[in-house]
Amino acid sequence: MTTVRVSDLHAHAGATVSVDGWVMTTRSSGKIAFLVLRDGTGYLQAVFPKNEVVDGAWERFATLTQEASVRVTGMVREEARAPGGYELTASDVTVLAPSTDYPITPKEHGTAFLFEHRHLWLRSRRQVAIGRVRSEIQQAIHDFYYERGFIRTDSPILTGAIGEEAGELFATEYFDLGQAYLAQTGQLYIEATAAAHGKVYCFGPTFRAEKSKTRRHLTEFWMCEPEVAFADSNDNMRLQEEFVSYLVSRALERCTEELKELERDTAPLAKVTAPFPRITYTEAIARLQAEGSDIEWGADLGADDETALAKAYDQPLFVMNYPKQVKAFYMKENPDDPRTVLNNDCLAPEGYGEIIGGSQREDNYEKLLERIHAQGLDPATYSWYLDLRKYGGFVHSGFGLGLERTVAWICGIPHIRETIAFPRQIHRLYP
Amino acid sequence: MTTVRVSDLHAHAGATVSVDGWVMTTRSSGKIAFLVLRDGTGYLQAVFPKNEVVDGAWERFATLTQEASVRVTGMVREEARAPGGYELTASDVTVLAPSTDYPITPKEHGTAFLFEHRHLWLRSRRQVAIGRVRSEIQQAIHDFYYERGFIRTDSPILTGAIGEEAGELFATEYFDLGQAYLAQTGQLYIEATAAAHGKVYCFGPTFRAEKSKTRRHLTEFWMCEPEVAFADSNDNMRLQEEFVSYLVSRALERCTEELKELERDTAPLAKVTAPFPRITYTEAIARLQAEGSDIEWGADLGADDETALAKAYDQPLFVMNYPKQVKAFYMKENPDDPRTVLNNDCLAPEGYGEIIGGSQREDNYEKLLERIHAQGLDPATYSWYLDLRKYGGFVHSGFGLGLERTVAWICGIPHIRETIAFPRQIHRLYP
Repeated sequence: MTTVRVSDLHAHAGATVSVDGWVMTTRSSGKIAFLVLRDGTGYLQAVFPKNEVVDGAWERFATLTQEASVRVTGMVREEARAPGGYELTASDVTVLAPSTDYPITPKEHGTAFLFEHRHLWLRSRRQVAIGRVRSEIQQAIHDFYYERGFIRTDSPILTGAIGEEAGELFATEYFDLGQAYLAQTGQLYIEATAAAHGKVYCFGPTFRAEKSKTRRHLTEFWMCEPEVAFADSNDNMRLQEEFVSYLVSRALERCTEELKELERDTAPLAKVTAPFPRITYTEAIARLQAEGSDIEWGADLGADDETALAKAYDQPLFVMNYPKQVKAFYMKENPDDPRTVLNNDCLAPEGYGEIIGGSQREDNYEKLLERIHAQGLDPATYSWYLDLRKYGGFVHSGFGLGLERTVAWICGIPHIRETIAFPRQIHRLYP
Repeated sequence: MTTVRVSDLHAHAGATVSVDGWVMTTRSSGKIAFLVLRDGTGYLQAVFPKNEVVDGAWERFATLTQEASVRVTGMVREEARAPGGYELTASDVTVLAPSTDYPITPKEHGTAFLFEHRHLWLRSRRQVAIGRVRSEIQQAIHDFYYERGFIRTDSPILTGAIGEEAGELFATEYFDLGQAYLAQTGQLYIEATAAAHGKVYCFGPTFRAEKSKTRRHLTEFWMCEPEVAFADSNDNMRLQEEFVSYLVSRALERCTEELKELERDTAPLAKVTAPFPRITYTEAIARLQAEGSDIEWGADLGADDETALAKAYDQPLFVMNYPKQVKAFYMKENPDDPRTVLNNDCLAPEGYGEIIGGSQREDNYEKLLERIHAQGLDPATYSWYLDLRKYGGFVHSGFGLGLERTVAWICGIPHIRETIAFPRQIHRLYP
């Protein structure tokens, strides 16, 4: 007997096959019984006519419990109303391994309980759908850069004392070399590889030991960071809008079933196409003030400010040229207004907030050194980074897209903790 | 004037364009001068006829130094002997930023010096070629699993006290939750996601605080780990041989120039096709003993043993069914010989050693618990992992492929430290 996965059933219509999977639900009348099964590649209904099944199968069916692993045998039948278009007219079922008192029942459970059972909760329809969207978006990220001739260069996680913000770093003993810190960003490193390969990106986990407890923060999250030599802030925003609209269109095209499972209204996503609207930080402050906010020029935008600004647009919104004092030391001073830098954030529509932070990088050795001093950082630690301005300095720009925030937006879910298999938050390290 | 990248010159034959890049070499006779330039996407020779260049260009040419960034303007000319098939008949050159006393000169440098200047060394032809092969292999990894319907599920880096080997873990303070440890493998986590998605993989950095100082060890390295539900040890080896031969063929097909730059003899790579030969550990010991080794049954194979075994084959070699005592607790006991487990290593040919370790996983709750106890591990820490055997246990298998070892083999380079942009070794955390 051929054993096939649910996603491959279409190639076996009319044939008798076996499918291995886990029991979702069962129901039975006196003469016919129904088993809905999942194998990770899809969902399958198996129909057991009492008079046609093999000896013992009807009794075995009666013992099935939620999440028991089973092998079902039967004939593949086309059925337009079935989830994947096929059903099984089953002749037999055997239990591969039992499941007694599975903790996650069809009734409601609290969030803490579900995250404590995250290793099992991942099997539920909704979590499976989110996981599939995340996986599709990751492949789309790689395809986007690969097709455009970018070279993927991995930045290190274990680093010396280098980063955006001291005090938000996880530290570990590193042999005889003292403390190492878990990278908050790969950017500084890929500025070096951009000089080797021209167009590069990194994609990997990043770490923030922030005590933030919001819907948009994880202590461990994945970030995609491209960096392009001989590209300025405008080129950078063009790349961002092309990239973000590509990710959205890939999800719309290839995750139809998953977005339906998540009850995502896809109409707002369908409107996401380059170019995106752009406003300056200074314009943003004026608008917020006009709407009654007491925010002053010079203050960073908060999540509520971002939501207020973004709600005027169907598209993601670029907010450009923030005050120097609220942004990282490596952003290039704006020649038209040296109080500001050549940076941009990208705010997702529908209140999902910042998904990208990007900037042109300071390529002037003296100015960069001055900023390092001004922020109280140790120039010795940054000597290799300063070298990039010493030997053939170059205009360059890049950005970081947060994977979990992007997936949360595309899936239409309010909290990013469900967008990663095993979320890490300040109060959660298990499972 | 259009500014184009070297890789796009073919679309501008006959046109006058500008190219931004870095100076590699210059030479000049009285009437003609040559500049070889790199922009990361390729190499370009620009030819300056003294009588045809703009005013001042000949003098500016004379000031060019290694790794200065420049803009060269000229006419794109097809030239079969040129690296990318095109040359520039240059009319102008301007220095974008100077480079004085670039540390890495065409003369020989010691390894320590080069790694201390890794951020600049990455620009050299050989390092660029290795970086491009690594990037291609990473894309090939993602394409391979994407095309086969695997779902990518990311495993956490920050974990509780769970792993293969205590004492080789990097630790960090995790808020009020005590110590967190940097993951040595994602496997245990993706066994959980395999029950959600059927066929999964993770790909990310992993960490070993080992004091190993060999050509094959880094403290931070990237690993690709697939895990398949309802697949046994044989299925697992079939997936491995299909995967490895796919990676090799992608590199042969799409990295021709890079492998030439690295002077890699590609003939041995061209022989790598599935299926791969398989021998048991017990056979391996008998062979080694026949060749005069004093290794005893029960000892783990060392690097020299692996080289001795692999040299008899053109293909990667599977060595299966190692003694239980030298392998991790989660490997499934071999029903035909319970002293051994259903595992395999995959040894690359040409002396490159182990690139894969894989196994069928112990899916029996009692046996797994017993092994956890026997190895002195804390069952409480593994309670979620044990749950996977409690609720619908399932036959499953997977493996881990080390990216850097695979890239070293395909590139034909002896030490894996050159296969990653910023290698981390016990004595190196900089740059």
